Amino acid sequence: MSELRKDPITGRWVIIATERGKRPSDFRVPQEESDASECPFCQGHEDKTPPEIIAQREAGSEPNQPGWQVRGVPSSNPLFVIEGDLNRTGVGLYDMMEGIGAHELIIESPNHVREISELSVDEIASVFEIYRRRMESLRQDQRFKYMLLFKNHGEQSGGVIEHSHANLIALPIVPKTVKKELEGAVAYYGYKSRCVFCDIIHHELTLNERVVVENDFYIALTPFASRFPFEVCILPKEHVSRFIYTDGKHVKSLAFIIKDVLRRLNASLDNPAYNYLIHTLPVNSVAQEEFHWHLEIFPRLTQMAGFEWGTGFFINPTTPEAAADFLRQAE
Amino acid sequence: MSELRKDPITGRWVIIATERGKRPSDFRVPQEESDASECPFCQGHEDKTPPEIIAQREAGSEPNQPGWQVRGVPSSNPLFVIEGDLNRTGVGLYDMMEGIGAHELIIESPNHVREISELSVDEIASVFEIYRRRMESLRQDQRFKYMLLFKNHGEQSGGVIEHSHANLIALPIVPKTVKKELEGAVAYYGYKSRCVFCDIIHHELTLNERVVVENDFYIALTPFASRFPFEVCILPKEHVSRFIYTDGKHVKSLAFIIKDVLRRLNASLDNPAYNYLIHTLPVNSVAQEEFHWHLEIFPRLTQMAGFEWGTGFFINPTTPEAAADFLRQAE
Repeated sequence: MSELRKDPITGRWVIIATERGKRPSDFRVPQEESDASECPFCQGHEDKTPPEIIAQREAGSEPNQPGWQVRGVPSSNPLFVIEGDLNRTGVGLYDMMEGIGAHELIIESPNHVREISELSVDEIASVFEIYRRRMESLRQDQRFKYMLLFKNHGEQSGGVIEHSHANLIALPIVPKTVKKELEGAVAYYGYKSRCVFCDIIHHELTLNERVVVENDFYIALTPFASRFPFEVCILPKEHVSRFIYTDGKHVKSLAFIIKDVLRRLNASLDNPAYNYLIHTLPVNSVAQEEFHWHLEIFPRLTQMAGFEWGTGFFINPTTPEAAADFLRQAE
Repeated sequence: MSELRKDPITGRWVIIATERGKRPSDFRVPQEESDASECPFCQGHEDKTPPEIIAQREAGSEPNQPGWQVRGVPSSNPLFVIEGDLNRTGVGLYDMMEGIGAHELIIESPNHVREISELSVDEIASVFEIYRRRMESLRQDQRFKYMLLFKNHGEQSGGVIEHSHANLIALPIVPKTVKKELEGAVAYYGYKSRCVFCDIIHHELTLNERVVVENDFYIALTPFASRFPFEVCILPKEHVSRFIYTDGKHVKSLAFIIKDVLRRLNASLDNPAYNYLIHTLPVNSVAQEEFHWHLEIFPRLTQMAGFEWGTGFFINPTTPEAAADFLRQAE
C-alpha cells in the first residue's frame, strides 16, 4: 500500500509508492519496448489484466473475452487501494496517512493502437462515454471527493505501456491544483457574478489570437498564461460544471475536437509525448455556476529545470499566440 | 524581454520567454553535443561570454583573460533583464508585468569539467564563496527581494551547456515555493518557539534512518516526504538563516559534504542528471529565528506524469529510508 506523507514545513503531501519500491538499478534500465504480441491490453489477452469492471462489447460477447471496443479494468499496480481507512497517524515529528482510493485503467481499443487520435470519431466518443460512466459510478462511493482522469502518452509523459489507455483515479481528498482553480473561479464569480471560464471563452472568441479550433459545442485555445509550449485547453462553449453531464449529442462533438487538436499537435511537433487530463467540479462542491469543466493537453517538450523547482514558476519559451498560429495552420 | 503573465483563474504567474521564441521545429532537434573546443566557458574563450562581473584570479591576471579559477558573467540569454520597471499592466481580461531581474552564470572551472564533484574540496569551496559574494552584492539592489542559486546538470535536468556552471537569478518578488516554506516555518515557530529545520535535524540524528552523511557543521539527509527518489537536503547543523552568512571556516566543510553526496549519487545512480538549489531567507524578511537555509539536490530519474500535473501531488517510487541506505553504502 502506498503511504501519503506530509512535509512538515510546507504541508505538501507526497505519495510514497512503497510497493513500486524502486532500487537504484531500476532507474538505470531504459524502458523496454513493448512487444505487441505480449501486450496485456490487446484483444485475446484479457487474462493478463484483472477482471474487467466495464466494457463496451458486441451483443452476446462474454466479459473478459474478445468482442469489446473499450474496456475498463483495475490497475494491477495501483497507486491507491480501495479497501481500508485513511488511518491518519503521527510518526515522531511527522504526519502520514494511507493511500485509499481507486485506480482504474480504460483500454481504448482492442487493437494495438498507440494513440487515441488514430481511432475514428465514433470510437473516441465511445472512449469518453466509458470515462463518463466510470466517473459517475465511482462518485457513488461516499469516501471519494474527486475523480481524476488522465492520460500519459509516450515515454517523456511518464507513460509505460504504449497501447492507448487512460488512468482514472478516485481520491479521498480534492487535489490542490483543482482546489486552487475552484477557489479562483469562486472568487471571480463573487466579484463579477460571472463564470471566469465563460468570460475567457467570450474574450478569446472576440480576440481570436489564441483560438486553435472550435465547433458547435467546444472550443480549443492556448491559454494566455500557458505553462508549457503548445499547451491546449478544450472547454464546452456553454457553461457546464461537470464532465459527467456530457450527453450523447455533445460527446461526439468533443471526440471530434480532441481528434482534431491531437492531429494538429502531432503534425506540428512530430508526434510528441503528451499528457491530457480532465478538471471537473469536485463531487461535493455546490459551485455549479462558478466552475466549468475542461480538458488540458500539454505536449512534453521542455524539462523542468532548477529555476522552476526553486521558484514554482514555469518558463514557457513559445508564446501561446505563436503556438495557436502554428496549430491553426497545421494539417 | 520576457513577460510575466498571470493565470486569471489560479493566479499562477508564468514567464513567457518571448526572446527564446521557440518554433515547433526547435523542439524536434535533439540537443547538440557540445564540442569542448567551442565551449564558451573554457579558459581562453573569455570573449565568448559577456564581460565578467566577478572572478577568482591569479594575482596579476587581467579581467576577461585566462588566469581565473571561478568566473561570474551575465547570461547572454537571460530570463530577466536588469534594466527597466515591472510595468504591471492589464491586457483585456488578463494581467501581466515585465521580467525585471538579474541572471548571471557562475563558471565553476577554467577547464572543461562536466561536474562540480570532479573538482577538489578547495576548488568547490571557492565556487561557493563566489556564489556567496554575488548574492551579497545583488542584495544591495533595493528592487530585488530574492536571489535564487541553482544548477542544471545533464540534459534531463534542463541543462544546455555541459561545462560545469550554476545560475544565479535575482527576482523582484519572493517565489512562491520559498514563500510557502517560510510561511510554514513561521507558523511552526509560532506554535513551538523552535525552528522546524532544527527540530528535523535533531529528530533525524536521533532516528538515524534518513541521514546520508554528516560532518562537523553540516548534515545531508533524505527528507521524510521526499518528492523525488534520492532527493537529498543539506543543512547547517547549527541554526543559520541565510546562506550568505557562511564564512570561510564553514564553506570548506560545506564543499566537503557536497562533494561527498554528489559522489554517492553518481556511484549509486550511474551519474544521473540532477538539479541543486539553495533556499535562503528572503532579503527583506526578519524571520531570522524561524528560517534555516538549506541546499536541495534532486537527481532527475522520474518523469512528472498526468497524475502529478492534475493533482499537484508528487509520486515517489523509492522510500527516503531506502534511498538513504543505498547512499550510505555507496562509495
